[in-house]
Amino acid sequence: MTKKNLLYAQSGGVTPVINATACGLIEEARQNKDQLGKVYAGKNGIIGILNEELIDTSKESKSSIAALRHTPGGGFGSCRFKLKGIDESRAQYERLIEVFKAHNIGYFFYNGGGDSADTAYKVSQIGKKMGFPVQCIGVPKTIDNDLPFTDVCPGFGSVAKYVAVSIMEASLDIESMASSSTKVFVLEVMGRHAGWIAAAGGLAQQERGDPPHIILFPELPLDEEALLKKVDKAVKTHGYCSIVVSEGVRDQEGRFLADSGVRDAFGHAQLGGVAPVIASKITNALGYKNHWAVSDYLQRSARHIASKTDVDQAYAMGKAAVDLALEGKSGVMPIVVRTSDKPYRWKVGEADLAKVANKEKMMPRSFISKDGFGITAAARRYLEPLIHGEDYPPYGRDGLPKYVRLKNILVPKKLENFDL
Amino acid sequence: MTKKNLLYAQSGGVTPVINATACGLIEEARQNKDQLGKVYAGKNGIIGILNEELIDTSKESKSSIAALRHTPGGGFGSCRFKLKGIDESRAQYERLIEVFKAHNIGYFFYNGGGDSADTAYKVSQIGKKMGFPVQCIGVPKTIDNDLPFTDVCPGFGSVAKYVAVSIMEASLDIESMASSSTKVFVLEVMGRHAGWIAAAGGLAQQERGDPPHIILFPELPLDEEALLKKVDKAVKTHGYCSIVVSEGVRDQEGRFLADSGVRDAFGHAQLGGVAPVIASKITNALGYKNHWAVSDYLQRSARHIASKTDVDQAYAMGKAAVDLALEGKSGVMPIVVRTSDKPYRWKVGEADLAKVANKEKMMPRSFISKDGFGITAAARRYLEPLIHGEDYPPYGRDGLPKYVRLKNILVPKKLENFDL
Repeated sequence: MTKKNLLYAQSGGVTPVINATACGLIEEARQNKDQLGKVYAGKNGIIGILNEELIDTSKESKSSIAALRHTPGGGFGSCRFKLKGIDESRAQYERLIEVFKAHNIGYFFYNGGGDSADTAYKVSQIGKKMGFPVQCIGVPKTIDNDLPFTDVCPGFGSVAKYVAVSIMEASLDIESMASSSTKVFVLEVMGRHAGWIAAAGGLAQQERGDPPHIILFPELPLDEEALLKKVDKAVKTHGYCSIVVSEGVRDQEGRFLADSGVRDAFGHAQLGGVAPVIASKITNALGYKNHWAVSDYLQRSARHIASKTDVDQAYAMGKAAVDLALEGKSGVMPIVVRTSDKPYRWKVGEADLAKVANKEKMMPRSFISKDGFGITAAARRYLEPLIHGEDYPPYGRDGLPKYVRLKNILVPKKLENFDL
Repeated sequence: MTKKNLLYAQSGGVTPVINATACGLIEEARQNKDQLGKVYAGKNGIIGILNEELIDTSKESKSSIAALRHTPGGGFGSCRFKLKGIDESRAQYERLIEVFKAHNIGYFFYNGGGDSADTAYKVSQIGKKMGFPVQCIGVPKTIDNDLPFTDVCPGFGSVAKYVAVSIMEASLDIESMASSSTKVFVLEVMGRHAGWIAAAGGLAQQERGDPPHIILFPELPLDEEALLKKVDKAVKTHGYCSIVVSEGVRDQEGRFLADSGVRDAFGHAQLGGVAPVIASKITNALGYKNHWAVSDYLQRSARHIASKTDVDQAYAMGKAAVDLALEGKSGVMPIVVRTSDKPYRWKVGEADLAKVANKEKMMPRSFISKDGFGITAAARRYLEPLIHGEDYPPYGRDGLPKYVRLKNILVPKKLENFDL
């Protein structure tokens, strides 16, 4: 039997460690050259596969692939593009199989969130139906931490660390200025419908009364009166009030406070800009001078302050995906299984893609304090290990991280163009 | 002669390394106990001195003082409070001298920007006039990098490193998403009237064509048409456009794009929120999807990504301030003197406070490229050494930096209350 090639694609918003997963996958495949062909990667994700734009990762040096481990962004490009149901998008699914056939692809690895797990599952189904079975492996990734089964989604731990460290640092700043100047600081973080990232800000509270004094979760509609009361109390008690707000916070009528009206390719609302809304409400009502920050892409690309735990897990998921393929598995996804909280211990497990697809893991209500403005001990027990350890990138003599930019050389096309 | 005590105060916006200066000052004073008394610190800066709220730093352990070197914020509190001219604010100046007398203060160290240098100078004058001469030493600090004479202001190098690293990372993120999603990213940075911090974003450009593709400086009025043309070209050439914008950018009529109308205690406009303004202009005109970030306090408290050069210089300024005092100097400020660009070499020098006071060092026009949207080789030569080296804080087992919170025990009051 001739060796089959591997095809890897990154999907959706990138993370500080999605390239660490790519690194684990490619290095493990290179370790198993006796059984596996080349690793190709879709240029800009699945759009590149549909366009037959396949990157030949064998053209990259060992050191370039190793450097993916510490490089943020998506090394091969990602995309926001969702395949619909098989009936609606049959031509696209058939095109994928056609590309797989043309390039002797035996293994398809789709590195993304819930939508991508769904796509990977459907591809595995249609491949069988079309008589060209491909082993389809989902590979978990999302800073939103909303995939089921896995203890955590690679990418989340590093964003959590960034948010916890940033609100800790900014709070030391405002604390020193508050007597005569700014009294309220609002940091907006990502996470869409799930408050996981906002909750991570709570890790900065090492002792009772420590900032952030307030966290606003998308899980609970904003109670403005209670918020203002709590802000005022914090300022009167601590001299200032430090707030983390999730981009997905809604008002009592269920409208996003920051809804810009724009939708992305998955049909999700594009959020942003809730921090200035909250800050203005507070200043208008209470008169306290405010400052606010929106970290946006900075938080999900801040590889310089990545969590070592997260980097290790991201790498392990890539490696495990290849190992699952070698075991002959398909329609599965490697996951992180927590075996102990303290000390934190984890191992690699697996989950059925059919069960993962399109299921969101919501943050349990038990993770949010009774008053709705903080995290509980249970949340802390879950979150804390995920930000353990530092994993600094190497720096050059110019004072900047040595991030790699790949050559990304394409495999020659064999097929006609396809009209997306 | 009995030993005189030292009084130190932090002034204005804090930096990631102002505490490193405090550390250098206190450690150097402790090394010279035979000649020097205790180091007191104004609680929340000069307001605390006027209120006779003096922190006794001798109550802090050696390790707590050492930890100031890696702790952001202002360890003793800072304030925005400007003493006016001697005639206008005579009562306040006299109060300062009264407090100095009551607590046997022989040396006053004021750690801040241009306004603080001015205050320190005036205090030295009035002390002499009132027959209680105090050695007044200005200690440079400001992320805005706008003090004259010194090669650089401690605090700036770390903010510069944060901005360069952040725009580099966020650009890798948008580069991987641009084919199907966001095409324009705008990062807003601080710096008021001076484009030093914005210029630092240009350091991320390691090769021609690298992001950021556009920097908007406060030194030049915004040419909207030229900006839109440049954005469009960047998107067409690179697939995306990455932009750093200074909070102080003005329109052709000289109005701040982000003017909120609020003024701080120094009478300066409180800026913020220009990134969404620029991003909207671009999307409205060109249709490209945008993301934007406002790093605000995060950038000036990000001790986790401080520049080692900056930390070393901040510490050296604190140490040198004490050494100047020991030499009997007054009305002076230690400065950083650059002796070589490549390799970067610097030494400690000194400047007259009378000459420093209220003088702003503007960024030379020769640092901005001809088209007004980038930095020149001269700017790079100046800026690059300032972000050299990393100086990570220690981290705890909880994954967070071990920042110190001082006990800040006050010296018993001896005077009547003073009405500020």
